[in-house]
Amino acid sequence: MKKLLLIPLLASGFFFGQNTQDAQALKKISTQILTQGEAYNDLHFLTKKIGNRLSGSPAYEKAVQWGAEQLKKAGAEKIWLQPVKVPVWERGTESLFIKTPSGTWTKMKMLSLGNSEGTQGKDLVGDLIMVNTLEEFNQLKESQVRDKIVFFNYIFRQDFIETFEGYSDAGKYRSSTASLVAKKGGKAVIVRSISTAVDDVPHTGGMHYDEGSKKIPAVALGPLGADRLAQLLKTSKVSAKLNSNCGMKGEKITHSVIGEIKGTLDQKVIAVGGHLDSWDVGEGAQDDGAGVVQSIEVIRTFKKLNIKPKHTIRAVLFANEENGNRGGETYADSLNVKKEPHLFALESDSGGYSPRGFGLAMTAEQSAQVKSWLPLFEPYGIQHINDSYPGTDIIPMKKYGVALAGLIPDSQRYFDLHHSESDVFEAVNRRELLLGATVMTQLIYMIDQHW
Amino acid sequence: MKKLLLIPLLASGFFFGQNTQDAQALKKISTQILTQGEAYNDLHFLTKKIGNRLSGSPAYEKAVQWGAEQLKKAGAEKIWLQPVKVPVWERGTESLFIKTPSGTWTKMKMLSLGNSEGTQGKDLVGDLIMVNTLEEFNQLKESQVRDKIVFFNYIFRQDFIETFEGYSDAGKYRSSTASLVAKKGGKAVIVRSISTAVDDVPHTGGMHYDEGSKKIPAVALGPLGADRLAQLLKTSKVSAKLNSNCGMKGEKITHSVIGEIKGTLDQKVIAVGGHLDSWDVGEGAQDDGAGVVQSIEVIRTFKKLNIKPKHTIRAVLFANEENGNRGGETYADSLNVKKEPHLFALESDSGGYSPRGFGLAMTAEQSAQVKSWLPLFEPYGIQHINDSYPGTDIIPMKKYGVALAGLIPDSQRYFDLHHSESDVFEAVNRRELLLGATVMTQLIYMIDQHW
Repeated sequence: MKKLLLIPLLASGFFFGQNTQDAQALKKISTQILTQGEAYNDLHFLTKKIGNRLSGSPAYEKAVQWGAEQLKKAGAEKIWLQPVKVPVWERGTESLFIKTPSGTWTKMKMLSLGNSEGTQGKDLVGDLIMVNTLEEFNQLKESQVRDKIVFFNYIFRQDFIETFEGYSDAGKYRSSTASLVAKKGGKAVIVRSISTAVDDVPHTGGMHYDEGSKKIPAVALGPLGADRLAQLLKTSKVSAKLNSNCGMKGEKITHSVIGEIKGTLDQKVIAVGGHLDSWDVGEGAQDDGAGVVQSIEVIRTFKKLNIKPKHTIRAVLFANEENGNRGGETYADSLNVKKEPHLFALESDSGGYSPRGFGLAMTAEQSAQVKSWLPLFEPYGIQHINDSYPGTDIIPMKKYGVALAGLIPDSQRYFDLHHSESDVFEAVNRRELLLGATVMTQLIYMIDQHW
Repeated sequence: MKKLLLIPLLASGFFFGQNTQDAQALKKISTQILTQGEAYNDLHFLTKKIGNRLSGSPAYEKAVQWGAEQLKKAGAEKIWLQPVKVPVWERGTESLFIKTPSGTWTKMKMLSLGNSEGTQGKDLVGDLIMVNTLEEFNQLKESQVRDKIVFFNYIFRQDFIETFEGYSDAGKYRSSTASLVAKKGGKAVIVRSISTAVDDVPHTGGMHYDEGSKKIPAVALGPLGADRLAQLLKTSKVSAKLNSNCGMKGEKITHSVIGEIKGTLDQKVIAVGGHLDSWDVGEGAQDDGAGVVQSIEVIRTFKKLNIKPKHTIRAVLFANEENGNRGGETYADSLNVKKEPHLFALESDSGGYSPRGFGLAMTAEQSAQVKSWLPLFEPYGIQHINDSYPGTDIIPMKKYGVALAGLIPDSQRYFDLHHSESDVFEAVNRRELLLGATVMTQLIYMIDQHW
């Protein structure tokens, strides 16, 4: 297997001049991180000692303190907290029972969807109707939906190779169906979780109500629970009893965490980040503890290797990606206010899996240059550098002309655990996480050297 | 992310004529396996109901029966067992204690290395000496080694991107040090496990004694146990007490399992396989239950999609890869005896992780043709098709002129669990396993169509 590493570089004639220097610098970064990287230990603390951390929660505040301390330990020369006003959503208690044909109430594993309102602690009882797709729902008359609880059993499309395509495809069932059902007089929505797993773990995630919509409760079932319910509905009339306390509890000021190493040449900023908040189940390990500790690793690696960047290298641990993106919006708007020139921003928010590519959102000229670096990145597992969506936290910077990129890791396992109790430290592999941090640091290095 | 799938095909002009047909056929295979594949369920039975299965053990005999039944269920038209004479190695009981400076004996997590002889149930006690490398050991005089237990604390090189390079690099410490130590009069060998994990799980695996060598015991410690012992040896004299019953218990006739679909055009054979045996710890899930169930999936997919192959498509579940490779040798030699023309053989024995490449061992002309198919495979995650080692079970066919290839999956997690109690069903991801089966079936399809 030894040949594999060298062939891509040799074949492309990249072993000469500047490219030789770049290749050597990239190798140094890789060796540093794979042998001395601390991202995995950092993630252990964040997930096991702090745990899940929805913005607005006490755990999120602990994460803010932890993030600032870690950036300091990693060698950031200046660290500050950026105030962000976030919505406060709380889950509270919740339960869902299904009345089986035998007349007994059976408890289902469920999660209220994020941002949804609950039943204010009262039992909401109604007859269930099932649709497999939005198209089926749209054909239902108001009289068929009125006072019903609508179960959307849309099955995740496993035929896509990239699971993010399946996620995009199924996303509207989680985000948008509550208002559609309310409009036709329905009482509540139950959705099949957006999940690639074959288990009974429900996945939460953000939903929203349309302007002026009645805020009916929306909950998710695990895939196997959804299968059982669908089977039951084929032959029987089924009613459901939902009781929940979730809901929006106003707003609160919290913070994104920022740390940087000053550039030796100018004040221009190269940013790298992930989001510090997570949903309120599991441990927020892959989503997005991974991106947070990888971003800290970028700072640490510049310091450990004593690389003096030309531009300022800044790590941003964003608040509130999951239910509002106020951290990303606030950061982007602060650029405008402070007239801070940003050269580039990189996000990691697709999990700490083996890196496979970068998605770029920048000018054609910049994009062509970054794509020309592909042979330098291939030995580290990067297969493609394409123009695509870079990440939710950084996308607000696009309107200020900042060149953006997102890490694209292998996507096969992400939606087994995304927004669920399965997203725990144990689901993260040390080498995969560090290899992601490696290519992130390498890309930041290349941008710093060549822009 | 939608663009990602199409760009490689479009860019290469592959959407015309034969290549369009091939691309469509490959997509059908992918959709069939990712939505209907049964490899993951098969693996659950093999790992949880049969478990680990060293050839020669009663569990291996169960696996043979299971393999034949699964091939039948998958649609193989002809199934048979190929007799293979295998060595029988048994572990028995084993323990290792280290005498700490305080004078107390502390038990260490350990595994005797496969094929090694034990202490015949008697306590073997001796003073420990540590070396970090073979070079250090080679500089020791006989008088320094005589009657000692030698601890090789060679640390897995985490700086390689492909972990198989680290495995190759460290392999000699497991396979070959016992005879070297015996030659200088040492009593036993303790090696640091060949592992990428940061845990205390020992990894076994094959070792051998040189011709005429004294057969001293050889055992492995987990990485953290090795670290503790190394720390202790820095400041103290340490002795060890080993007691084990492992050893070779003669030979036995067992079987490889073979099933095939007849070709419509000729009698030439295209083979695909993995090894049915595993080491005697854990569940042999990634090594090589994955390759076994993927190979069965190839047969199933041809039948489910009603693809009538031109040549015979044969799945081979090899016996005894782990401690002798007698299954692979016997199968290759049977070709010669029976004059069965084999066009091609493909092996999966690097884990059921996301597929990244194929390693080819065939003529330059054949290799060039298979490499020209890369654009067809890129949408399924294949980044490189290179000339490299194809796999241990099939390599004996090389001398009979058979074109060979091995699946190269992502290697980051493999050596966390390889040959250890950590290699269990839960370490295998359903989509990754099925995606590996997908590209295997696709390559078999392409060879069948074009050769």
